Amino acid sequence: MSTDSYAATSRTTPSRARERVSYDREAVHAALDEAVLCHVAFVVDGAPVVLPQLHVRVGETLYLHGSTGARAMRRSGDDGLDVCVTVTHLDGLVLARSAFHHSANYRCVVVHGRARLVTDPAEQEAALRHLVDAVAPGRSDHVRGPDRRELAATAVLGLDLTEVSYKSRSGPPVDEAEDLDLPWWAGVLPLRNAVPQAPVPAPDLGPGRGVPEHVAGWSRG
Amino acid sequence: MSTDSYAATSRTTPSRARERVSYDREAVHAALDEAVLCHVAFVVDGAPVVLPQLHVRVGETLYLHGSTGARAMRRSGDDGLDVCVTVTHLDGLVLARSAFHHSANYRCVVVHGRARLVTDPAEQEAALRHLVDAVAPGRSDHVRGPDRRELAATAVLGLDLTEVSYKSRSGPPVDEAEDLDLPWWAGVLPLRNAVPQAPVPAPDLGPGRGVPEHVAGWSRG
Repeated sequence: MSTDSYAATSRTTPSRARERVSYDREAVHAALDEAVLCHVAFVVDGAPVVLPQLHVRVGETLYLHGSTGARAMRRSGDDGLDVCVTVTHLDGLVLARSAFHHSANYRCVVVHGRARLVTDPAEQEAALRHLVDAVAPGRSDHVRGPDRRELAATAVLGLDLTEVSYKSRSGPPVDEAEDLDLPWWAGVLPLRNAVPQAPVPAPDLGPGRGVPEHVAGWSRG
Repeated sequence: MSTDSYAATSRTTPSRARERVSYDREAVHAALDEAVLCHVAFVVDGAPVVLPQLHVRVGETLYLHGSTGARAMRRSGDDGLDVCVTVTHLDGLVLARSAFHHSANYRCVVVHGRARLVTDPAEQEAALRHLVDAVAPGRSDHVRGPDRRELAATAVLGLDLTEVSYKSRSGPPVDEAEDLDLPWWAGVLPLRNAVPQAPVPAPDLGPGRGVPEHVAGWSRG
């Protein structure tokens, strides 16, 4: 049974701003699930590489996928691939009276671990269904599923959520007491992300194919 | 004089989907400038780490900043720090008739290089002004600038834009010819990011301090 929090490790323990860090499982899940996109870092010839990827969380596993020809996927065979996966929501810009105290409001999940190539066909197919549903809930019932050739061309990576941290900032700017009477405006500019616009049907979509409920009802805003 | 494109290197040359990659300087600048946030990867004890950071581009230099106590900053002294900096705009979700051809519309800049700690005081102060203006154009004229103690507590990293690639996808889903008559809806769900909401004044803001033009006129949407 899982506890309410992830256990802290040396690399998920911050050297500073500790008050902004937590290991709360619910907060981690919510931030991962709200995001469509994560950034995946790995090491190539000793140098860091970070690329965007679509992801989905299923329980305590984060799934990523890509072409079997992609660099990260090619490197993940056999022993797996050491990765750091980060999801960030920029919730607002924090304008203080001093330049120094300018900041951002955000929620950020960082996952460390070794991603394994999913080789079990049932797990691979389930993960791919979840990935489609992460784009639009219910979508996986309204598509042609992958055939054998497509499955062979798609690599799915699984990353266990064990070494995980959550960092966030919210609320107004915090200025020095002696700056409070300065004439400068201070406050927060909230931002919304992934705000859905009107769906654009494919030009080759046949007549009479209206926007289905799982698309029309879609909103992450 | 700079050319219109960055020179490709082995690590900015993709092994696949080459048609999505370019080195166009103008496209790179636009994508960097539109984003408030980047993801910075570096290597710690052989393992990858990726964290979000605010950034600003000044000419052909990308500036990052953080507390001198932050891990990336502490490691950047003397020889600099090998980093990969990635900026991604998720412009839309691409829903195809087949699960396999689901995709995303995006613009992504990847910069490889060695970030150097900015030690010249004039360059540091200029970079910090640009960072404040990246949050809200003109803002740096409406704040208290950093004092000596604050400057000493702020590390600025500079990364030259030399090894840079730009990858993007846009437009409708591309389905297999034999899938075109399937009954499933296909198209794009466009997304907007960093959409500004109404400014929230700080609770300790004095009376009569209306929202200034550089805040009211702010929009990245």
